[in-house]
Amino acid sequence: MKNAVGRDIPESVLTGGREVFQGSNYRDGMEYAKASPKAKAYIKPGESKILSSVKEAVQRCGIRDGMTVSFHHHFREGDYVANMVMKEIAALGIKDITIAASSVGQAHDPIAKMIEDGIVTGLQTSGIRGKMGEAVSHGKLKTPCILRSHGGRVRAVEMGEVYIDVAFIGAPTSDECGNARGTGGKSDCGGLSYSMVDSKYAGKVVVITDTLVPFPNFPPSIQAIDVDYVVVVDEIGDPRKIATRAARLSQDPRDLMMAEKCAKIMAATPYFKGGFSFQAGAGGPSLAVNRYLQPLMVERGVKMKWAIGGISGPMVGLLEKGLIESIVDVQDFDIDAVNSLRSNPNHYEISASQYANPMNKGAFVNMLDFVVLAALEIDIKFNVNVVTGSDGVLMGAAGGHSDASAGAKCAIIITPLVRGRMPTVCEKVVTVSTPGESIDVLITDYGTAVNPRRPDLVKELTSAGIKLTTIEALKEKAYSMVGAPDDVQFHENIVAIMEARDGTILDVVRRVRPFEF
Amino acid sequence: MKNAVGRDIPESVLTGGREVFQGSNYRDGMEYAKASPKAKAYIKPGESKILSSVKEAVQRCGIRDGMTVSFHHHFREGDYVANMVMKEIAALGIKDITIAASSVGQAHDPIAKMIEDGIVTGLQTSGIRGKMGEAVSHGKLKTPCILRSHGGRVRAVEMGEVYIDVAFIGAPTSDECGNARGTGGKSDCGGLSYSMVDSKYAGKVVVITDTLVPFPNFPPSIQAIDVDYVVVVDEIGDPRKIATRAARLSQDPRDLMMAEKCAKIMAATPYFKGGFSFQAGAGGPSLAVNRYLQPLMVERGVKMKWAIGGISGPMVGLLEKGLIESIVDVQDFDIDAVNSLRSNPNHYEISASQYANPMNKGAFVNMLDFVVLAALEIDIKFNVNVVTGSDGVLMGAAGGHSDASAGAKCAIIITPLVRGRMPTVCEKVVTVSTPGESIDVLITDYGTAVNPRRPDLVKELTSAGIKLTTIEALKEKAYSMVGAPDDVQFHENIVAIMEARDGTILDVVRRVRPFEF
Repeated sequence: MKNAVGRDIPESVLTGGREVFQGSNYRDGMEYAKASPKAKAYIKPGESKILSSVKEAVQRCGIRDGMTVSFHHHFREGDYVANMVMKEIAALGIKDITIAASSVGQAHDPIAKMIEDGIVTGLQTSGIRGKMGEAVSHGKLKTPCILRSHGGRVRAVEMGEVYIDVAFIGAPTSDECGNARGTGGKSDCGGLSYSMVDSKYAGKVVVITDTLVPFPNFPPSIQAIDVDYVVVVDEIGDPRKIATRAARLSQDPRDLMMAEKCAKIMAATPYFKGGFSFQAGAGGPSLAVNRYLQPLMVERGVKMKWAIGGISGPMVGLLEKGLIESIVDVQDFDIDAVNSLRSNPNHYEISASQYANPMNKGAFVNMLDFVVLAALEIDIKFNVNVVTGSDGVLMGAAGGHSDASAGAKCAIIITPLVRGRMPTVCEKVVTVSTPGESIDVLITDYGTAVNPRRPDLVKELTSAGIKLTTIEALKEKAYSMVGAPDDVQFHENIVAIMEARDGTILDVVRRVRPFEF
Repeated sequence: MKNAVGRDIPESVLTGGREVFQGSNYRDGMEYAKASPKAKAYIKPGESKILSSVKEAVQRCGIRDGMTVSFHHHFREGDYVANMVMKEIAALGIKDITIAASSVGQAHDPIAKMIEDGIVTGLQTSGIRGKMGEAVSHGKLKTPCILRSHGGRVRAVEMGEVYIDVAFIGAPTSDECGNARGTGGKSDCGGLSYSMVDSKYAGKVVVITDTLVPFPNFPPSIQAIDVDYVVVVDEIGDPRKIATRAARLSQDPRDLMMAEKCAKIMAATPYFKGGFSFQAGAGGPSLAVNRYLQPLMVERGVKMKWAIGGISGPMVGLLEKGLIESIVDVQDFDIDAVNSLRSNPNHYEISASQYANPMNKGAFVNMLDFVVLAALEIDIKFNVNVVTGSDGVLMGAAGGHSDASAGAKCAIIITPLVRGRMPTVCEKVVTVSTPGESIDVLITDYGTAVNPRRPDLVKELTSAGIKLTTIEALKEKAYSMVGAPDDVQFHENIVAIMEARDGTILDVVRRVRPFEF
């Protein structure tokens, strides 16, 4: 059945009331009942939640074949927690486990082997990289991997579409009762926004920390009232990979040129005025936008009311200069962001639901003016792919891309026209992870195109003297440079389902096969 | 059926799986499913939640006969919100409404008439005073009023025993999306702890404010993701009655003598050591305890780790002097507490669930060392009554009394032995609102008694040179002074059910009748 981005979604994935994507606002106003969380009464004072080991936690939580466990990705590529838990689960002979993570990456390469061995048979995640991505793309996972945006993940948990039996929440600090924070330890990660929904909806909640602190560890990201057990381990992660030093701003002239163009375009829209709001995605060009935005803000006397998203040093710099009034934070990409969240009273941690859940009563993204994001590919319908590489292998993260794009008044994609021998702007993306209707502007090193759905923006930008082209022209230019790409070849079987943020089906990812001539 | 505090609970109230009270820890470890909250998707960016009037909110929420609405009592006797909402409900001809408030008081006298008129036919609250108490006690309410502790209220909502159709949350400030705070407006009340559960579980949530502030109003006590509508009115309350100036410390020599005794007793227990925790109830003697505790803390070099509860000036003073490390706050009794919560980074707002819900995975009260509380009556089994007067009329508040008593290692009641011509220490309290098993020490102006369940405390205090007597001797002394009281005379019909914090039935309150000779 064809969906609203023209993808043919096989009936086989439309089980249990699932629908195909029908437009970003299709479920606006829908009334529903949230899932009913399982709970347990801890009435007796003074009982300890501290367990001696991860193994004991796995056993006390009663983990058995077929269950679902969850992890967060605030430690990014420095995470030790998912591997240490899965190792104990495997050692206990438990199999058929579904991992419901906020994201997985190369840090979790050891789990790829567990997919091959049938220990892990289900995976729900926002991002997937490294050997996990390869294992899934080559059809090793028993059930289709479910890919969701950050907002979509909260939605799915709250709507009961995924039931987490046990949430394992790595935390830089915790007290004996499970009040857990992302700061104050030896491996600070900033906030724990993605885990908040796990703590509220999972059957059992285990906090794993390497720094036990006196009660109460306040203010907590994860509240003791939701935590069953606390385990203290030697190390929850590699601090060098958890919070890196502030990412150096890109010096690539191509990145800088696009970033400068982006700042100028933002300043030419009606949304660039006192009190505007902004999200900058990770990646060189996006981060560099702040650099060019700053002089324009100073020149025009325009201050930003709030910035949101994954936060890094450049945004913190604007906060400290008084050019941003407050930062609302779901994830910290570097040590500057971690330190700012800990110490700056105008830098607030929010939950992933507050950030982006489309099915609550109004997420922050709904109030966004601008978001600047990257893309692996973007097609002539402005559909974006951030999950599969040009070879069709899963290697990216949906993240908050589709959430922020859907909410923002002006969603901008910055990408070079070609990467190596591959066109970035193309006829049809391999996988649609953000629907084109959410994207307003595409900035490349060979020109800027505005989505025809936004004639108002075309008019504003043109009258500000910004030269525009069409996305078709950009595609032609790309193809003329590197040639039209051959279609990626797939087997029939579906290895992953790309959900839209509202839970409808945006696309499917099929098993890759070696290129055949 | 007799319960664990010896009260005969009629079968007629044991409907729907209700049980009689069977001891404070009876439900410890119980596993259950929380209620499934109704929700609504606000996906489309930029839609406004602002309504023009309370009347429009009542209409848009679809309030009709038989529904349940909720209010909080953070504005205490200065609240305008409950009356303004109920007035609109009455004007629309809607009847048979249940009010599920965190507490009601004399501010709500106008609603007593609505009870007589059948507009309000159900009431669930922690406290009840003034004309509301009289109306209920005289059998005017169609269904028995349900009295719960603060922890018990959260429990009942989370377990689905009360479903709130529409929560009306008065807030000193809100943004257009419903991020609401207890500070920053013209009628600051500090925190909004009691309303947090309403915002998460009610079918519809309306924030009523008199001070609309720019988005985002952060950090919010009530999150926009849970709010349907925002109404701006002229005044949400009388600031003079919401946050009074710091309560003057009692100068009553009797109060001061008891407070001094209390501080000495606390200091004689093993819990008085670096890092202890403390809750002081409202009321003269309790507040005065801080005054005598301070020199003992300084003398012994003992600092408090955290203080909790309804907070007032004296506790804030200790925080500012560095004698307390942090305050965790569910309610602010005066302007000093409001200001401290707003400005002191070591003064934290928590939810009523974090404070006291017995059925979550461990509330703060479970970690309490000391709580000092008042009583209207206490009997020789140490059962306390804080809800009915000596005439049997409802005139008090269960509050966090039974929650903190159950959790604290040392729960102390301070009360004069007699009040006017009534003995405070008696054979049998009119209504049991806190079970005697939770109370450890009784301090009166005529001596101190320790609960025989605590031989360890008897030993510690005696060896510290503190003279103890028995509660029977105190009762005899009281009776010798003012005579044994005659039993209050009641009709058979039950006008209120006093729930224990875990939802079992502690006692019932019957319809009063004029004294007959």
